[in-house]
Amino acid sequence: MRQSKLFTKTRREAPTDEVSKNAKLLIRAGYIAKEMAGVYSFLPLGLRVLNKVMDIIREEMNAVGGQELRLSALQEPSAWAKTGRWQDDAIDVWFKTKLKNGNDIGLATTHEEPLTVIMKQHIASYKDLPVYAYQIQTKFRNELRAKSGLLRVREFIMKDMYSFSRDDAEHEKFYEKSKSAYKNVFDRVGLGDRTYITFASGGSFSKYSHEFQTISEAGEDIIYVDKEKHIAVNKEVYTDDVLKDLNLKKKELSLKKAIEVGNIFSLGTRFSEALGLSYKDKKGEDRLVVMGSYGIGPERVMGTVVEVLSDGKGIVWPESIAPFRIHLIDLSSGNKKVRDYAEELYEDLLQEKIEVLFDDRDVRAGEKFADADLIGIPYRAVVSEKTMEEGKIEVVDRKNGKTRMLAEAQLYSL
Amino acid sequence: MRQSKLFTKTRREAPTDEVSKNAKLLIRAGYIAKEMAGVYSFLPLGLRVLNKVMDIIREEMNAVGGQELRLSALQEPSAWAKTGRWQDDAIDVWFKTKLKNGNDIGLATTHEEPLTVIMKQHIASYKDLPVYAYQIQTKFRNELRAKSGLLRVREFIMKDMYSFSRDDAEHEKFYEKSKSAYKNVFDRVGLGDRTYITFASGGSFSKYSHEFQTISEAGEDIIYVDKEKHIAVNKEVYTDDVLKDLNLKKKELSLKKAIEVGNIFSLGTRFSEALGLSYKDKKGEDRLVVMGSYGIGPERVMGTVVEVLSDGKGIVWPESIAPFRIHLIDLSSGNKKVRDYAEELYEDLLQEKIEVLFDDRDVRAGEKFADADLIGIPYRAVVSEKTMEEGKIEVVDRKNGKTRMLAEAQLYSL
Repeated sequence: MRQSKLFTKTRREAPTDEVSKNAKLLIRAGYIAKEMAGVYSFLPLGLRVLNKVMDIIREEMNAVGGQELRLSALQEPSAWAKTGRWQDDAIDVWFKTKLKNGNDIGLATTHEEPLTVIMKQHIASYKDLPVYAYQIQTKFRNELRAKSGLLRVREFIMKDMYSFSRDDAEHEKFYEKSKSAYKNVFDRVGLGDRTYITFASGGSFSKYSHEFQTISEAGEDIIYVDKEKHIAVNKEVYTDDVLKDLNLKKKELSLKKAIEVGNIFSLGTRFSEALGLSYKDKKGEDRLVVMGSYGIGPERVMGTVVEVLSDGKGIVWPESIAPFRIHLIDLSSGNKKVRDYAEELYEDLLQEKIEVLFDDRDVRAGEKFADADLIGIPYRAVVSEKTMEEGKIEVVDRKNGKTRMLAEAQLYSL
Repeated sequence: MRQSKLFTKTRREAPTDEVSKNAKLLIRAGYIAKEMAGVYSFLPLGLRVLNKVMDIIREEMNAVGGQELRLSALQEPSAWAKTGRWQDDAIDVWFKTKLKNGNDIGLATTHEEPLTVIMKQHIASYKDLPVYAYQIQTKFRNELRAKSGLLRVREFIMKDMYSFSRDDAEHEKFYEKSKSAYKNVFDRVGLGDRTYITFASGGSFSKYSHEFQTISEAGEDIIYVDKEKHIAVNKEVYTDDVLKDLNLKKKELSLKKAIEVGNIFSLGTRFSEALGLSYKDKKGEDRLVVMGSYGIGPERVMGTVVEVLSDGKGIVWPESIAPFRIHLIDLSSGNKKVRDYAEELYEDLLQEKIEVLFDDRDVRAGEKFADADLIGIPYRAVVSEKTMEEGKIEVVDRKNGKTRMLAEAQLYSL
């Protein structure tokens, strides 16, 4: 895409009420716009990143047998009343509103109830199980405070998967599989080495739930990390009994602040019992379906990447989720030959199906470089009189600043 | 995909409170599930269709220079107050709710206001114009009545594009271009021949707006169609003056019920004036940006296709938006050789990147055929002892019921 056509502009300053690093950088670079505290819109660059994060998640969920669907945000209260989660003291972040006839409805913060109700139409026999269904859909949460940019918001896209299994053994098998799928997601978005699977409280149906926590000073969670074993324990379950159970030693653990980028829960029969989701087993006897839920927030992942990977000059995107792969900078400053070559190179890159942002704007070199650093595309490719004399292109790696002079063909296989 | 794994099941009857043909068929075939009146969830088959409709729209919007973004559903009132659209008497379908601090917020029914505010950050000079921005995002409308399935809903995905132009002439040029883009969309989703560009009331900034109306008894609109010229006039502007203006003759018009599947509006400076979106022209003088808005509801398009193209047996999808291209039916009934061949053919089709739903279920032939008719995939390919004896596959065209015996290779180029 031509930067002269991209309607978003970078800006020197973020809004004064914005305190988080991720929101400041993403707003300054033109990725997002703030509607109100905890509510952001995604501009073209931001949507490109978000789509890549969502596609990675989608691929990993499909790989473990997930079927994608899309549930409604508006929720009728009856199923939630049956599970005891309609009241604000059960889910304290409900946004509620009313139909014209005065009936209460809610904006879903999660979807165990409606999906369990839907499954009653489609699950009758053991032959219909297991089922793994997921969506990538907008959630609403009426957070009291929202000052962490994309890390704690009132409206956000979430990937939520739900598993429906015949029994605990079948459930456990998938639960372990989901851990690997999640690990793949965080590896692929560039957070793998600093993201720890973390033991957290499990609720009534299992000893633990598992969180995926990325070490960051911007995090709201406190975890105790065992670097050697690459696992962690959430402060909420950090007791002598739990450490013993997990075979962890206090002296090998270090306290860290972390961002919860994903979580997985065993739900047992909490929802299937309350809502009557059962199936006939091989003997023809009724049994309750065993459920689990598995969440990742793509926007929070995006915000976390900005928190932990950016530097003093701006954002540093991993290649896998960068809005473009190459930021081509035309430094022709009036030299038509250089200009023509930059245009030609842009067309060649498009031809090669390489995602390229072409800075064809008529602005100073310093401004182009500062914008490129702020926007954070992995490879900056500069074309100028000097590079043309050498018959090469100057490529700078955003991550480490290393500069190379490359031939055009080498650009295709960066 | 294997139908034995697809978790949705067809059902004989739709919910008794469902009166519209589109909702009845889509629920019975397992495309959607009803959350409450006017609120539906999209199950895997339904999401596949919806994604295809959205992709077609996306391609056509990109082709006219649209840049995709994604605005928030939660809306802070201030911009809406400035344009006079926060009050319920201006927009009578607002869903409103409150933040924890008691402040009112709304769920967007449309996005002129927030996008105009965002553009103030990005448009300063004539060099920054024109801009065409669009999103495919969830809208909420508190409709008094919702009994038409996907045709009138309280929560739905909408493609809304907004144009920002220097002056009326530049606006008009794009407005005409958008008409062609819309025509392409309706042609591609299979509604072209029965969809009429329709003159409707224009508001304060232009004589007319334009609607795209698909002839259907399920429609809520009344239009007067000139079949020869392939245009129509909405009842709301059906006056002698308008007919004269448009050079239409009463006797050449026929009254039809129709579904509004799209609309385009010239907004003039209504929003840019109220919200202060101006730019410096070449002479350095401040001028207001001229705007337009352009909507299509992908779910309504999907519902309309079901209304107008289905038959007594079920849904008939156009190839362009069908959830799968081929419905492969295994009629081996215990014959292992036939079964193995069906499996092999399924793998071959996947290899050829053909979207195929494989009915590998252990149910009677009659049930398989009835389900296939209800689900409405364009080509039904049957493998049985009989077809194997002939060394061919029996292919039935869902649209017209025509049967052909084809060799496997011919299946790839259907």
